[in-house]
Amino acid sequence: MTGLTELAQGVRRAQRKFAGTDAQKRSQSLVALAAILKERQDEILQANQADIAAAKADGLDAPLLSRLRLSDSKIDVLCEGLQALSESPDPVGRLEKKTRLDDGLMLTRVMSPIGVLLIIFESRPDAVIQIGGLALRSGNAVIMKGGREAAKTNAVLVSCIQDALVANALPQHVVVGVEDRASVAALLELDGEIDLVIPRGSGAMVRHIQESTRIPVLGHADGICALYIDEAADPAMAAQLAVDGKCDYPSACNATETLLVHEAFLPHLKGVGQALQAAGVTLRADPASRDCLPDAEPATDGDGNTEYGDLVLAVRTVPSMSAAIDYIHANGSGHTDAIVTENPDTAEQFLRLVDSASVFHNASTRFADGYRYGLGAEVGISTGRIHARGPVGVEGLMTTRWLLRGSGQGASEYGPGKRTFLHVDENFPS
Amino acid sequence: MTGLTELAQGVRRAQRKFAGTDAQKRSQSLVALAAILKERQDEILQANQADIAAAKADGLDAPLLSRLRLSDSKIDVLCEGLQALSESPDPVGRLEKKTRLDDGLMLTRVMSPIGVLLIIFESRPDAVIQIGGLALRSGNAVIMKGGREAAKTNAVLVSCIQDALVANALPQHVVVGVEDRASVAALLELDGEIDLVIPRGSGAMVRHIQESTRIPVLGHADGICALYIDEAADPAMAAQLAVDGKCDYPSACNATETLLVHEAFLPHLKGVGQALQAAGVTLRADPASRDCLPDAEPATDGDGNTEYGDLVLAVRTVPSMSAAIDYIHANGSGHTDAIVTENPDTAEQFLRLVDSASVFHNASTRFADGYRYGLGAEVGISTGRIHARGPVGVEGLMTTRWLLRGSGQGASEYGPGKRTFLHVDENFPS
Repeated sequence: MTGLTELAQGVRRAQRKFAGTDAQKRSQSLVALAAILKERQDEILQANQADIAAAKADGLDAPLLSRLRLSDSKIDVLCEGLQALSESPDPVGRLEKKTRLDDGLMLTRVMSPIGVLLIIFESRPDAVIQIGGLALRSGNAVIMKGGREAAKTNAVLVSCIQDALVANALPQHVVVGVEDRASVAALLELDGEIDLVIPRGSGAMVRHIQESTRIPVLGHADGICALYIDEAADPAMAAQLAVDGKCDYPSACNATETLLVHEAFLPHLKGVGQALQAAGVTLRADPASRDCLPDAEPATDGDGNTEYGDLVLAVRTVPSMSAAIDYIHANGSGHTDAIVTENPDTAEQFLRLVDSASVFHNASTRFADGYRYGLGAEVGISTGRIHARGPVGVEGLMTTRWLLRGSGQGASEYGPGKRTFLHVDENFPS
Repeated sequence: MTGLTELAQGVRRAQRKFAGTDAQKRSQSLVALAAILKERQDEILQANQADIAAAKADGLDAPLLSRLRLSDSKIDVLCEGLQALSESPDPVGRLEKKTRLDDGLMLTRVMSPIGVLLIIFESRPDAVIQIGGLALRSGNAVIMKGGREAAKTNAVLVSCIQDALVANALPQHVVVGVEDRASVAALLELDGEIDLVIPRGSGAMVRHIQESTRIPVLGHADGICALYIDEAADPAMAAQLAVDGKCDYPSACNATETLLVHEAFLPHLKGVGQALQAAGVTLRADPASRDCLPDAEPATDGDGNTEYGDLVLAVRTVPSMSAAIDYIHANGSGHTDAIVTENPDTAEQFLRLVDSASVFHNASTRFADGYRYGLGAEVGISTGRIHARGPVGVEGLMTTRWLLRGSGQGASEYGPGKRTFLHVDENFPS
């Protein structure tokens, strides 16, 4: 697979040239891409039809077929997204920090693209354009591996992006596609050539990638989110947040999977259970909570640390908030956890002590999402503790560079008995 | 080595408790640590004497013995550092971003400790206190592995830190030491328990660690820094920056290792060469530059991509700035690279196009350093592209958490035809 090393090195060279071009050219390439998608719409939809026919013959199930299918209106949505990205501020070179070290010696820290990203995703060919658009905006290069079932569609979409780059005299190989699984395995070995892997798919797929590479991985394998109902919870609010957290979109990573109930709340639990069961939720309750939930199933071992992705909810009783927090740390995935309580001190303690990427008070776990957070396009949700954490927007694709503008200074001019540094923070000049 | 998994899990539990305590207690523990170091000074120096005697018997060389040796004055310096840390602002919970999603639905992003750090360092026992102090300030826990030659000193210093924690009713196991190499190898396997590895030592040691773990590593294996002398360089400034970059501290990672010379500058190169040779520098020059540097040695293959760490400098001629940048990308280590030129447009192009952690104009590469950048205590210098890059201060030990304070909202209340998000940036309320 030496060809892949060379491919990745070529992508790195293209990315460096690309990052050095001005923001306006990147904006123009996004507008051009939208135009090319409309021009080549028939070709795109034909390739998509061929993929769908093959997928049907392979017996792909209906939800996957629906994710695979492109349409006029889906392409319109993609073009609107590209237009919005073209008008959004360019992050490359954005000033983050400015410090005057001395007269005539000014230090700045600026945003800079991470470099070469490897994105691995399943089914949805829309992702090619969404991810490619983010790369164009942020000055990064992307090697993309989409699902086999969308191979023909993905190939046409990648060639549309390359056409948009070439039409603006930008390096073509900023966005490239690879097709087979063996290539992915080989690319995951290239920790000198690839800077970040972003997997979008099942927990099993993400975990497999995390375990097979030394390249940093941005994402999450599991979303095991808990809602803790405190003794001072408003029962109606508890019911509403449990139903929203579980039922709004049960297969999402930010859906609530575990209800932790303070034992003093048990007398009010029946109402919460009725609301959930009315919404079609199966409850798996421990003995204490099951006494208040006559229709619940008994909890089994896996409940309380499982991502059901379905209308199933574990219910566990805890003697205190501190026990709830210990339970979350021992069984959760550090994604999103929430408390419902009318006691503001208890709430603040929960917000301070729970070590998860997102921690909520009196709000549904479903809010953990880049769009809802106002980040614009979402790159993913990270449960890692290094680099970006929680919902990640385009800034998660950026690193920094330190730039120092001097007038001939040497470091040996500074020190005891010599010049001293000023270190004036110039971030907010008056 | 199951004992180590349990040790690391115990450290994680201690860290979570510790991160939840208030900033003032962490400040007090730093003051207490300084007092304990003075109280136990005799015991510390005795342990250090025993280490030095054993190291002498083992034939350790003089520079290493000098790094190993503690003294009254070194302990005073450590205590001053702890005092300064105790008065520095606490990063835990610091507000980074605030967005009003809706009335009664406020999102904040706050700084949060990364968690459990594994720090591996050589010789200098001072590092135990410097690193331990940073951990206490930042709410992180640290597993430390120091050099075998400093084992007795390190053990006493770790117990001083633990005493300071216990005296303030803080969890003792926020700072723990391990002694043998086998433990390190086993700890590097624990990517679920340890969040970040920070190696401080030789390039070979750092590279070995990077290659033997899936835990993120903060640091740099190599510091191959170039100074590019542009055709429009001031010859006197070029000489001064080359001498400072090479000679101020030749074994530092930010020392200049390669001089790239625009061919139009060759007529002025002799003066630069004389200044370097007067400072004792051996030049290894390619044929074109050697014509102007009669006393230079001929360049060999390794020159231009080697960290000499000594008074040796490679000299290469390039036909253009663009060739210099290509050379840096192909042979440098992405640490720090500088240009010397009187042409501001050329300088800005260099600053934009060179993809290194630090990029300088008319300043010595030796400025790449946390203290000089005004970051306070330096954790290390990272050439990685994920998380912190370049000189890293205490903020490099922090991640973030997203906190959402609501009043009972469910995500299903928002969307087309329903409530819309406000996304009001409240970072700088008027």
